[in-house]
Amino acid sequence: MRIAIDAMGGDNAPFEIVKGVNIAAEREKDTEIILIGDEKQIADCFSQLGVTQPQNVTTIHTDVVVTMEDDPMVVMKEKNNCSMAIGLKLLKDGGTDAFISAGSTGALHAASTLIVRKIKGIRRSAIASIMPFDRPILLLDSGANPTVTEDILNQWAIVGSAYVSEVLGVENPKVGLLNNGTEEHKGTPTMQAAHQLLKENKYINFVGNVESREIPNSPCDVLITDGFTGNIALKLAEGMGTFMFSTLKSLFTTNVKTKLSYLLVKDQLKGLKKLFSSSSYGGAPLLGLSKPVIKAHGSCTADNISSAVTQAISYSKSNIIEKVSQSVQ
Amino acid sequence: MRIAIDAMGGDNAPFEIVKGVNIAAEREKDTEIILIGDEKQIADCFSQLGVTQPQNVTTIHTDVVVTMEDDPMVVMKEKNNCSMAIGLKLLKDGGTDAFISAGSTGALHAASTLIVRKIKGIRRSAIASIMPFDRPILLLDSGANPTVTEDILNQWAIVGSAYVSEVLGVENPKVGLLNNGTEEHKGTPTMQAAHQLLKENKYINFVGNVESREIPNSPCDVLITDGFTGNIALKLAEGMGTFMFSTLKSLFTTNVKTKLSYLLVKDQLKGLKKLFSSSSYGGAPLLGLSKPVIKAHGSCTADNISSAVTQAISYSKSNIIEKVSQSVQ
Repeated sequence: MRIAIDAMGGDNAPFEIVKGVNIAAEREKDTEIILIGDEKQIADCFSQLGVTQPQNVTTIHTDVVVTMEDDPMVVMKEKNNCSMAIGLKLLKDGGTDAFISAGSTGALHAASTLIVRKIKGIRRSAIASIMPFDRPILLLDSGANPTVTEDILNQWAIVGSAYVSEVLGVENPKVGLLNNGTEEHKGTPTMQAAHQLLKENKYINFVGNVESREIPNSPCDVLITDGFTGNIALKLAEGMGTFMFSTLKSLFTTNVKTKLSYLLVKDQLKGLKKLFSSSSYGGAPLLGLSKPVIKAHGSCTADNISSAVTQAISYSKSNIIEKVSQSVQ
Repeated sequence: MRIAIDAMGGDNAPFEIVKGVNIAAEREKDTEIILIGDEKQIADCFSQLGVTQPQNVTTIHTDVVVTMEDDPMVVMKEKNNCSMAIGLKLLKDGGTDAFISAGSTGALHAASTLIVRKIKGIRRSAIASIMPFDRPILLLDSGANPTVTEDILNQWAIVGSAYVSEVLGVENPKVGLLNNGTEEHKGTPTMQAAHQLLKENKYINFVGNVESREIPNSPCDVLITDGFTGNIALKLAEGMGTFMFSTLKSLFTTNVKTKLSYLLVKDQLKGLKKLFSSSSYGGAPLLGLSKPVIKAHGSCTADNISSAVTQAISYSKSNIIEKVSQSVQ
């Protein structure tokens, strides 16, 4: 098993990436991890960590990096030797089994579609993100495709179900359609048409429309939506979580009494924080592609990267891509 | 000032409606409040409250009620003497200054458009809902119009600004466009086109695209979106709040230590709850109509109804409709 990682992508690169790889390499002795990025900077990170580069970690050097300001559509032409492009080409050519990047989502999605290509028959690849809470929900698309058709939504139900059953181990996952009401006639014409296709789709376990109010109660395992709505929902849930924890923090630091209160409930609050965090699930897989590509969060930490390596391994070992190929033919 | 209220709409009708009216009538001595609904049931509610019907409260009898199962589009033809239709006709004919209902949103929106009519030049009326947090944001449309055009969104910026400045007293309110990124080119083609129109709209103070993650930090006073996305955002925020408080509740009741912790922080938690509640702002105004119609929450309490009466009075006294008429001509 060989997993490549973009060492230069994301807000905390390369340090947190290298640190995460170091944790993962220690755990996954049989996996070769390839760090793609500035050799010297990567070496400096290992020095900073006070460790020698693990035997199962290799480096491919490049000093070209995609920034958040680069236009996703032109970046691959002008920067075809950047860390992201090298990683995707390596994956395409069979040199690795999966690729992870915390770089620009738009660039990663556009470049993956161009270089790695979609599964034959799949019309659009989607970014699938975990919404945590009591039981995780895979939300797709969470941002790559603002406008879609009912056929695309229907295909995503298949790729999402395959991922959730193979990687998260959920048997016969429940698929919901994010909508502004539970009744069949609700939503935009596209959502109404998608509802009918999903109802007739024999490869999935469709449970109907899901209202956003229900999301924290985990009414389904896979939640289908267009990339515009998905992005609004994902970021709002994140923003609400952040707001809540910062408000709780200021609440507990009001005075001596509240500070004492905090000490008495500290352990439980840690559990609460976990309920609102998706980081243990790794990154967001780009589903519908012919090979595993994972988008790590732009502000990911070493632990997230380490989880993403585990996720990439189980994605590579799974039958997701074959399963989807057969269903869409 | 005469305010009519649908006594039969919503999950807690007629009791909470009558109770709320009783509170409001006591406070607003100069306002006549007209309860529309089953006379006997209304009288029973006053008996249950142990009060006599206030002098400034009158009743119009009907035993026909719109249910949540009724199709909004046909309900007005088949049930044209229901409490909702009577209230709207009374408003249209000048018999009252505003109408409040906690009944079916779809029916109220459809019937208001048919009976009360929109302001001349306004293409669609919108349901405007308050998202609370640090500083309230008026979100429109929050559910009536799943599909829109850029012109409609641009008009809603005008009606939303007028409401927020006149009723909430916000000077030169900031208008944001809910989008999946802050850059101008983000979003669906409709959102991209709306961004350009809003930028050139001289009647509003446009602050650009707003990402949903920022909503709890109140980046604007008016947030413009289509009714599909708005509904998803509004209900998700509500659902996240409910989930959070039920999780906090079970957290504080874990053991003796956490119960003690709760006692020490109880007062602050009440303040937290208020941050997540929009009930003190009354109901959701249907903006773009030629007269004030307010949708109270389906599960509203007496206090919400009482707030909605205050809101209806200040809406009626305001210059919102004149202001909008002049801007869209």
